[in-house]
Amino acid sequence: MVTVDEHSFPPADSCGITIPEPCGLIIFGASGDLARRKLVPAVYRLFRQQLLPRGFFVLGLARTAMDSHRYRELLREATPEECVGECWQRFAALIHYRPIDYGDPASLRAVLSETLPPLEENAGTGGNRIFYLATPPAVYGEVISALHRAGPAPAADARNKIVIEKPFGTDLESSRRLNRILLDAFRESQVYRIDHYLAKETVQNILMFRFANSLFEPLWNRRYIDHVQITAAETIGIEQRAGYYEQAGVLRDMFQNHMFQLLALTAMEPPSLFSASRVRDEKAKALQSIRPFPLERLDEFLVTGQYARSSDASIRGYREERGVAADSAVPTYAALKVWIDNWRWHGVPFYLRSGKRLKRRTTEIAIRFRPVPHMMFSRSVGGDIEANTLVLRVQPDEGIQLEIQAKHPGSRMCLMPVNLDFSYRGDVSLSAYERVLLDCMEGDQMLFVREDGVDLSWSLLSPVIRALEGRKGLPDTFFYRAGSEGPDAAAALLERDGRKWREL
Amino acid sequence: MVTVDEHSFPPADSCGITIPEPCGLIIFGASGDLARRKLVPAVYRLFRQQLLPRGFFVLGLARTAMDSHRYRELLREATPEECVGECWQRFAALIHYRPIDYGDPASLRAVLSETLPPLEENAGTGGNRIFYLATPPAVYGEVISALHRAGPAPAADARNKIVIEKPFGTDLESSRRLNRILLDAFRESQVYRIDHYLAKETVQNILMFRFANSLFEPLWNRRYIDHVQITAAETIGIEQRAGYYEQAGVLRDMFQNHMFQLLALTAMEPPSLFSASRVRDEKAKALQSIRPFPLERLDEFLVTGQYARSSDASIRGYREERGVAADSAVPTYAALKVWIDNWRWHGVPFYLRSGKRLKRRTTEIAIRFRPVPHMMFSRSVGGDIEANTLVLRVQPDEGIQLEIQAKHPGSRMCLMPVNLDFSYRGDVSLSAYERVLLDCMEGDQMLFVREDGVDLSWSLLSPVIRALEGRKGLPDTFFYRAGSEGPDAAAALLERDGRKWREL
Repeated sequence: MVTVDEHSFPPADSCGITIPEPCGLIIFGASGDLARRKLVPAVYRLFRQQLLPRGFFVLGLARTAMDSHRYRELLREATPEECVGECWQRFAALIHYRPIDYGDPASLRAVLSETLPPLEENAGTGGNRIFYLATPPAVYGEVISALHRAGPAPAADARNKIVIEKPFGTDLESSRRLNRILLDAFRESQVYRIDHYLAKETVQNILMFRFANSLFEPLWNRRYIDHVQITAAETIGIEQRAGYYEQAGVLRDMFQNHMFQLLALTAMEPPSLFSASRVRDEKAKALQSIRPFPLERLDEFLVTGQYARSSDASIRGYREERGVAADSAVPTYAALKVWIDNWRWHGVPFYLRSGKRLKRRTTEIAIRFRPVPHMMFSRSVGGDIEANTLVLRVQPDEGIQLEIQAKHPGSRMCLMPVNLDFSYRGDVSLSAYERVLLDCMEGDQMLFVREDGVDLSWSLLSPVIRALEGRKGLPDTFFYRAGSEGPDAAAALLERDGRKWREL
Repeated sequence: MVTVDEHSFPPADSCGITIPEPCGLIIFGASGDLARRKLVPAVYRLFRQQLLPRGFFVLGLARTAMDSHRYRELLREATPEECVGECWQRFAALIHYRPIDYGDPASLRAVLSETLPPLEENAGTGGNRIFYLATPPAVYGEVISALHRAGPAPAADARNKIVIEKPFGTDLESSRRLNRILLDAFRESQVYRIDHYLAKETVQNILMFRFANSLFEPLWNRRYIDHVQITAAETIGIEQRAGYYEQAGVLRDMFQNHMFQLLALTAMEPPSLFSASRVRDEKAKALQSIRPFPLERLDEFLVTGQYARSSDASIRGYREERGVAADSAVPTYAALKVWIDNWRWHGVPFYLRSGKRLKRRTTEIAIRFRPVPHMMFSRSVGGDIEANTLVLRVQPDEGIQLEIQAKHPGSRMCLMPVNLDFSYRGDVSLSAYERVLLDCMEGDQMLFVREDGVDLSWSLLSPVIRALEGRKGLPDTFFYRAGSEGPDAAAALLERDGRKWREL
């Protein structure tokens, strides 16, 4: 996996956003929600910001029978009203649609040999193709195989790229199967496995923050850090995704990908170069160092829960959601204690938690430092001094905050907690989907998950999920009130270690 | 000097401002500017905030012949208009005045034996007396000797305290002489040598900031710090103080006291207890570790300058100020490079600068950290990454600011400097004079300079000042434009070391 990637450097003057080379974006599942509500709107925003390549087109493919005209009308609904007249004409001219039958090799073959060439010639994309899988995950294998069989091997032409959304498999076996199909057809350097969290400004910032400042790296280890808390809390429930969520649960939905990626970025060693392969090497090493979870005493490491009706009954419980089984045992919350067995992190627990229907929406990484070693203020201040915390806020209000102690003004002796704060506020100029599309066009894989990353996180979580799903009966403590901080058992998980969660 | 001062702890619940025990404040030089414009207004603000002791009075003493009634009228001018009627009645009732002849022992004896006792009995101050020297410094010795001779030795009664304003001597000899006179009459524990800078919120905060946070102390040494810049820049000139300033110059006016105190607080080792004597022990140790300045090559360490007329001629030069000699060689600016020869600071220069008529008013301590050891972004970012800086802002806008690098939003690779910031803003509730008075009433000497502190800083600076004053002729480079950043030679002082001053 170690490669010399001299050529993956962006140009030295890359401080602006560069406009990628011409390319065509071929979307599978183009009539679905994801494509219409996320993907094409992101293309539209890039279009409005003039960040699309000079030569560019979208070709939507899906089972639904319709023509390009009808498809554009469909997209128009998801496009801001401000774009009318000439604006809309220009944008719509980039969009094309063709119905396709994934099961019939001839169907895709016709797309590749008949539909694409004139579009490519017209846009001057020189054969640069991004295949974007926006289909349901169950169809991924089928589409990739079809691509493989439909024409010349995609792997043979480095200009082909493929983008895959989560979930990437549902366990270790299925993810390996999918990777096999994928890497039969493509080379790893052509594969872009999206983790939208990685495309967020603050997540990318973690690396720069850690390695472009001399202040933090010396403290970033067991000697100075007491523990780390990684939180991804949502206030929403499962929305219209009961079918997916009943199969997934929070561990597949949030931990295998996002939470473990945040963990890896926080815990990884400094790469020797800021390049996709070196960064992903180090992330893989961090994941490799995670101590496997002991299945026979899982409760010491993992707490799961499911949201029940809120105390004022204004929010319904998970089991009352449409499409959810009345006796569903699917967890909507998990708290996980992770040990990283390496020189840097020995003895420093990483506590991860994520859940739906919690009190507040927040995603953050909180580095809790050790307390001051000697309490010279002890007799005057009275009580313990709160230890310092560095918080990397991923959402909302992306930014960085350092929670320290300062003198209380006026009084002679007293300390008060103060925040040194920086917020990106309105400055975050690209949404996660825009970032993902641009990076993929640029051929920058840094924000995408490599095969070994997927494999390692499934290796750790698959046995845990299997053990959980094999359990009979649920304890009462499984349920937490919608709108609360989560299950009491999650609080107890930290209290046993003499710690506590940051308040949501 | 090492004493066990168990009794110097404030009570454990000292988080508020405590009201001191009853006492009387006896002001020498009561009719002067300092007393009328600074001291009594501070007493007034304490009165309005109900922070004065339950039993309290002011007895003003000066040569001017007037009665208490007339003195109160004089003070009324310096009192905010809001205080009329009953408010003024109550405040004025605390104030008394008596003319005095410092040269005549009988005069002070009469004050002590006749004027004070009824005031003390009336206020119930139980003999707690604060003698405050607000006279011209030339009279300090005379007043202290008079106090010594006029009655029972002040040292004999621990309830006596004496407060002295700067300047404390004009060189090592005169300061030692003054200390001798002082410590003949009083014990060190009764002596409060004011450095108003020490009473500022952020200056006090330096200690708490350093020692109540686990984040900074591990970085607070030669391994991580490149250099330190301590700046006290003023925009004002010498105002009405030409007589004083022509004698003093910037080294006596700012360096011997304020700048060296800021330096000591920044450089000192952690005291084992947050008590006056332990803190002052460590400050003394830091001053002792300063490498004496080599007089034969002073230019490598010291740059002085004097402000000349501003480029648009709107501000006159120092030599044009009323009361200043037309060929005055008195420096109004100095930049000094200081080495501290101990384990912690070996190889880390401290650059101190202070001047009048500079571009901006600011007092700050800037800790400049070393650059990141390995430039993993080098090929992508292009150019050096600015090193981190921690700034303790003393004035204006007291607060703390951490200058770090973060990802530029939008772009893939770029860094931008951002500030993690905390400001005390309006929260600073006590002015320096109020703080000084309260602490003195409380018997807390932490913010006051001990004998050895004065002695050490004069030992370092006296030879330098003497060498400077012995020089013949001034280089043209001595003069800087009013409203500028100071003399060019000061910039060169750092440039020789490959560094530069923070912009004013």
